[in-house]
Amino acid sequence: LLDEDNEKTRGLCEELRPADMADLLEQLPEGRRYHLVEVLGPQLAPETLAELAEEVRDEIIEAMPNAQIAEAVAELDTDEAAFVVQDMDDADREEVLAALDLADRLALQASLDYPDESAGRLMQREVFAAPSFSTVGQIIDRLRSGGRLPDLFYEVFVVDPGYKVLGSVPLSRFLKAPRDTRLTDLMADDLVRVPVLMDQEEVAYLFEKYNLISAPVVDESDRLVGMMTVDDVVEVVRTEADEDLLALGGVDREESGLSVPVPKIARSRFIWLAVNLGTAILASFVISFFDATIEQVVALAVLMPIVASMGGNAGTQTLTVAVRNLATRDLTGANTFRVVGRETAVSLINGAAFAVLLGVTAGIWYEAIGGGGPGEGVILGAVLAAAMVVTMLSAGLAGILVPVTLQRFGADPAVSSAVFVTTVTDVVGFFAFLGLAAIFLVG
Amino acid sequence: LLDEDNEKTRGLCEELRPADMADLLEQLPEGRRYHLVEVLGPQLAPETLAELAEEVRDEIIEAMPNAQIAEAVAELDTDEAAFVVQDMDDADREEVLAALDLADRLALQASLDYPDESAGRLMQREVFAAPSFSTVGQIIDRLRSGGRLPDLFYEVFVVDPGYKVLGSVPLSRFLKAPRDTRLTDLMADDLVRVPVLMDQEEVAYLFEKYNLISAPVVDESDRLVGMMTVDDVVEVVRTEADEDLLALGGVDREESGLSVPVPKIARSRFIWLAVNLGTAILASFVISFFDATIEQVVALAVLMPIVASMGGNAGTQTLTVAVRNLATRDLTGANTFRVVGRETAVSLINGAAFAVLLGVTAGIWYEAIGGGGPGEGVILGAVLAAAMVVTMLSAGLAGILVPVTLQRFGADPAVSSAVFVTTVTDVVGFFAFLGLAAIFLVG
Repeated sequence: LLDEDNEKTRGLCEELRPADMADLLEQLPEGRRYHLVEVLGPQLAPETLAELAEEVRDEIIEAMPNAQIAEAVAELDTDEAAFVVQDMDDADREEVLAALDLADRLALQASLDYPDESAGRLMQREVFAAPSFSTVGQIIDRLRSGGRLPDLFYEVFVVDPGYKVLGSVPLSRFLKAPRDTRLTDLMADDLVRVPVLMDQEEVAYLFEKYNLISAPVVDESDRLVGMMTVDDVVEVVRTEADEDLLALGGVDREESGLSVPVPKIARSRFIWLAVNLGTAILASFVISFFDATIEQVVALAVLMPIVASMGGNAGTQTLTVAVRNLATRDLTGANTFRVVGRETAVSLINGAAFAVLLGVTAGIWYEAIGGGGPGEGVILGAVLAAAMVVTMLSAGLAGILVPVTLQRFGADPAVSSAVFVTTVTDVVGFFAFLGLAAIFLVG
Repeated sequence: LLDEDNEKTRGLCEELRPADMADLLEQLPEGRRYHLVEVLGPQLAPETLAELAEEVRDEIIEAMPNAQIAEAVAELDTDEAAFVVQDMDDADREEVLAALDLADRLALQASLDYPDESAGRLMQREVFAAPSFSTVGQIIDRLRSGGRLPDLFYEVFVVDPGYKVLGSVPLSRFLKAPRDTRLTDLMADDLVRVPVLMDQEEVAYLFEKYNLISAPVVDESDRLVGMMTVDDVVEVVRTEADEDLLALGGVDREESGLSVPVPKIARSRFIWLAVNLGTAILASFVISFFDATIEQVVALAVLMPIVASMGGNAGTQTLTVAVRNLATRDLTGANTFRVVGRETAVSLINGAAFAVLLGVTAGIWYEAIGGGGPGEGVILGAVLAAAMVVTMLSAGLAGILVPVTLQRFGADPAVSSAVFVTTVTDVVGFFAFLGLAAIFLVG
């Protein structure tokens, strides 16, 4: 990177789209990042701020003079502006808000008053709406005359005198109609409305399901208060899917960015590992019950991780499918019972398959190494086989019942399920295998 | 559900949006599903077919008469039509294609000729393009005069006489301009173009990054051949994120739907579990080296699952973050080295933390149960602590290096990484713990 020639740097950066500029800033080490922001000064496009990863944006904003932030915020749509200022500390945010003109300030303030991750926070307040009696011609004239219009929009929202949403006309349909056509004749009235307090995950679900490009956001009395566009939704879909992926892997989304400092990552992962340690200790506790058995038949210690590992993996498979189907809402109260039946069937089939496979192999191995008395290989094989079936069945049941139950009690099944499921499979697996061995092999 | 009163059923279904109708069909058991499709007959909206989950759609289409399918396909945009016919068997597809009019047939045939999951397959061929010298007024007149226009579109693509894409004008900007404005004065020329053979994952990346609503699809000579819209991309984002989630959980996407039959699910999961069994057997093999050591100190059998479990979980954490950052392209060739450094640091910090925690606890426990000679608790604690550090470090390194290496060799890091990482952590964990114990504790 050119450090000395600021002119040249500015020239190169001028050609970048805001998203590319944001990528560049994210890839740079911290020192360079600030340097570049300083060199660019006001040339840094306001949209770049909106495109940055959260932790990088927060840092850059802290380093920028409030006056420059205010200028940037004034140029952005309310949804992007809210993104930029929401994590600033209160004093700085007040200063930025105070520097805005009244209309911008009120709009932004209203956005910030809605809860985080709600439609109200994600929407832009700039919308284009028209009364139902207007004609195509009147609206085109109004659009051409300028005024406070949203930068980009995709449909004309049709409202009554109380600003209640009646329907909408996509711009492409609008453009095909003669000038004297009334909006009422063009509008679709099965429009999907987004309540202003709806959670972003619900909003994304609506957009995905009905293939929406934009949708009106309405308050409790069905009055138009803003508009959501699909580009925000793409980000929500990505974020929510990522959250599930990361949660199943035992990671906070906040520490998944590559700019998060090492101590913060270590602390956040430590917590999850500590929770998991509880599970591991519980499993050890089960094993310690059977230390006398293991002392007599060390082969048990050799084979027991196989039982736990197969159980853990089978449980993870079922859990992953369950979490995914809960997220897409294919798994509902109506079909839970049927799905549990399916998982039970799958567990029993695979449990039986691996029982035969492993029971025979372990029996032959044990006879071959000459462990135990004659015929004990058969017993060991049978014990392992029985333990496999029990463990796989418990894995299947825990894999589906744990997330469904957590969801029913309002917890996020992706975050907390994995540790419960592993606990079940570990404890059941060790208990079944060592317990059966204690009875039939050593007994 | 009303089974007897077909009239009433038809009435109720008439009010449903296609997406809701598709949901209803998916939730019904198979028998009912066919019955409903039969009762509805031609009333079933063509869009419903496009909205259905793949496995349900394929079944319904097999049961529908080809003539009805052809009628439905004729009404759909090419992207949706391609969805519907792509999985039909060849003879049926030929029959449906033959029943279409020439233009529809050629368009659909061309779509199907592009590879699965490419922009060419996902795009719709219906686009609205205009020469650069046209004025706003001319275009509005052309739109009003009707003809073969796409149902919904969001921008006017500006082309030269050879149909090369020069730029585009969003409809909202277009509507604000006076009738005599030329397109050249309105168009943005930093338009993002999608090459027709681009993979859908790349397309989704472009749409997400640049917040696109629609984009022109171009062939090798930059000529306009179709248009992609963001609603298709939302589905791709969801699908690709789901694929990563499921792959990490050891599940094929194809068996994650709730309508897949049990034997197919069992078979697909069996394969993954069998691969994992290889890992587990390898781990057992390591343990069997140390059977004499375990026989002398059974406490090792009790504690060894803790080492493996902590290693496995730490590896999964790192792997999950790596897979996610590879998917979002935040982890690139440029910063791999730095990220490996970070993961090493995090592993060492948490490895040390758990080493102290577990070493002390295990030492006290071993002394308390009176295992071994005096002072052996200290040695056991030290061995466990050292094994923890080694295992956590190997987990961190494997968690980042395995997916990065797989990606570099063109493999999907989400699908194949987990088994490699677990193999490393299990083998290293058992080997370090039991090996150190064999040397220092039993010696």
